Amino acid sequence: MLVSGLLTGARARAPLRASLLETWRLRGRTASSYSASSEPSKVRALIYGNHGDPAKVIQLKNLELTAVEGSDVHVRMLAAPVNPADINMIQGNYGLLPKLPAVGGNEGVGQVVAVGNSVSGLKPGDWVILTSAGLGTWRTEAVFSEEALIQVPKDIPLQSAATLSVNPCTAYRMLMDFEQLQPGDSVIQNASNSGVGQAVIQIASALRLKTINVVRDRPDIQKLRNKLKDLGADYVLTEEELRMPETKAIFKDLPLPRLALNCVGGKSSTELLRHLAPGGTMVTYGGMAKQPVTASVSLLIFKDVKLRGFWLSQWKNNHSPDEFKELILTLCNLIRQGQLTAPTCSEVPLQDYQLALEASMKPFVSSKQILTM
Amino acid sequence: MLVSGLLTGARARAPLRASLLETWRLRGRTASSYSASSEPSKVRALIYGNHGDPAKVIQLKNLELTAVEGSDVHVRMLAAPVNPADINMIQGNYGLLPKLPAVGGNEGVGQVVAVGNSVSGLKPGDWVILTSAGLGTWRTEAVFSEEALIQVPKDIPLQSAATLSVNPCTAYRMLMDFEQLQPGDSVIQNASNSGVGQAVIQIASALRLKTINVVRDRPDIQKLRNKLKDLGADYVLTEEELRMPETKAIFKDLPLPRLALNCVGGKSSTELLRHLAPGGTMVTYGGMAKQPVTASVSLLIFKDVKLRGFWLSQWKNNHSPDEFKELILTLCNLIRQGQLTAPTCSEVPLQDYQLALEASMKPFVSSKQILTM
Repeated sequence: MLVSGLLTGARARAPLRASLLETWRLRGRTASSYSASSEPSKVRALIYGNHGDPAKVIQLKNLELTAVEGSDVHVRMLAAPVNPADINMIQGNYGLLPKLPAVGGNEGVGQVVAVGNSVSGLKPGDWVILTSAGLGTWRTEAVFSEEALIQVPKDIPLQSAATLSVNPCTAYRMLMDFEQLQPGDSVIQNASNSGVGQAVIQIASALRLKTINVVRDRPDIQKLRNKLKDLGADYVLTEEELRMPETKAIFKDLPLPRLALNCVGGKSSTELLRHLAPGGTMVTYGGMAKQPVTASVSLLIFKDVKLRGFWLSQWKNNHSPDEFKELILTLCNLIRQGQLTAPTCSEVPLQDYQLALEASMKPFVSSKQILTM
Repeated sequence: MLVSGLLTGARARAPLRASLLETWRLRGRTASSYSASSEPSKVRALIYGNHGDPAKVIQLKNLELTAVEGSDVHVRMLAAPVNPADINMIQGNYGLLPKLPAVGGNEGVGQVVAVGNSVSGLKPGDWVILTSAGLGTWRTEAVFSEEALIQVPKDIPLQSAATLSVNPCTAYRMLMDFEQLQPGDSVIQNASNSGVGQAVIQIASALRLKTINVVRDRPDIQKLRNKLKDLGADYVLTEEELRMPETKAIFKDLPLPRLALNCVGGKSSTELLRHLAPGGTMVTYGGMAKQPVTASVSLLIFKDVKLRGFWLSQWKNNHSPDEFKELILTLCNLIRQGQLTAPTCSEVPLQDYQLALEASMKPFVSSKQILTM
């Protein structure tokens, strides 16, 4: 079922791609015939020359494709999401900034078109995702080095592959690396409807962990509650509900969370800390409220609460490429078993990138913008 | 030299003790003759019946000494300090509060007068300190259970013994348990003139760690700088100096600190965090500024800074009595080697407790108040 759904999706995108990529010509080359002397094909890419408001600094431009040599891999991008970190990077508010001008986007899935002579692990037709951020995925084609790519199985949905390498990895590592949680233990998080939040709900559910999921109140809150519960959420609370004394009743049925995952900061993270079990850890991985994390001295001393941060790029720096591949394959298995789905996505053709950027920066937009090439 | 100094000190205190303890009669009993039927002796103790301002709620009262049975040990207290935690406990602002009415004071050194029949590890004449907080040390005598006591060698200064079980233990554990520091690594701390602060300077120096010591500015700042440098401090800076850009020059000569020790909170802890090495830990063990600890989201995520708390009582709950004894003996060895001295102390007779309480609550009082019995 997944495979047929995927093929339908791929066919559906084909005419769109043809209309988009006016300058793109594949010319029937095979991997082995591709060499440094090949005439470069034209690619279209979303490029920024300065940091600033993405709507203003991002432009769709034609790029020359560099020649494919040695360990190079020519990849035709299929789909690439617009993540909050992509926006922050364009704005210049991120811990890792590429040299400018740069192509936007940090993750996505592509299909190998051709490989250089010394490439042994990939062949044309393979699906690949990127091992690291900052390489620029918002483009129709690119030449990456083999070591920048990880093959993913083609029997997972395209949207899952496109959104696999950042949010689900972040969710999985945060659930595994800070507290040794056992089935039945609970986890509390804010921004629960974010890409990471939805992955946390699903992976925690697969690990038989209970989740308390905090979201901002909104007009269609019941719809959101239902959606997150369908994903496996045990409790869905608004920020306001979390502050009410009645909320403590939840902890008659489940243990106090030993892990809190914070993507907001400010008051929201203070509330998470208030509900954390003694000795527990709050991991901060985002700061949507643009306010710092604050903890009372007595929480730190007497309740032994630990405050940490998580950044996937850092994790990858401290771990081998094989460990990252193992992580990706673990997540692919969860996807195959139906335990991890992509967030609700809106596919937007690359040329309509302004719509995608705008939508991704609006509050309460529940679907992830995915650029399709 | 230490031994003769100590004996002189003991002799000097003897007349004082006689005048103080009007109700105290030892009556020449030996340990083995002490039993439940013995007539109880009178003791004087600083007692509080309600939480509040120590100057108002603490009263010097007579207490009956309970009989010495089984594993009981009758101890004549020699000296007991007034620590900030003692004050907080009386005020009711502490993570561990005794049943009221309670005797004040959480540490001190005493001498065994007599032991119950089943006591095997202690004999009359031994010096002892207490294993845990909340037992009340501001009294002339007490009956404790054997397991509440640790014998300390009598060849260390009385003031060192009296102030050994809280601040130096806290300093040592914070230096050992959070970051694996190597000789040459650096540590930054605020409240560097506190009991813990001075112990940190000395223990760090013994471990060949470099210390950057932050203190509040004061009229006699140069005197304080000299004093802390004499203890082994590498750098002594005021809070204001730490904020100046020139301070960064320090880190040309030594690595960025991987450990920050925070006894203040608020802005002072923010400054410590700013100088912490990526991946480093700030351990909070006090909150003199009565303001929370705040960290920007980007410090947590991109700089991987860790915020922790330390509370010795918690450490003792999580470790065996033998581990605590080992810690005490390690510190006694440092004291014997001249690497760890007591903070500057002002000895105050128990009856003048109001002076000691008052002095211990004033800012910038550089000497620790020690009640002598």
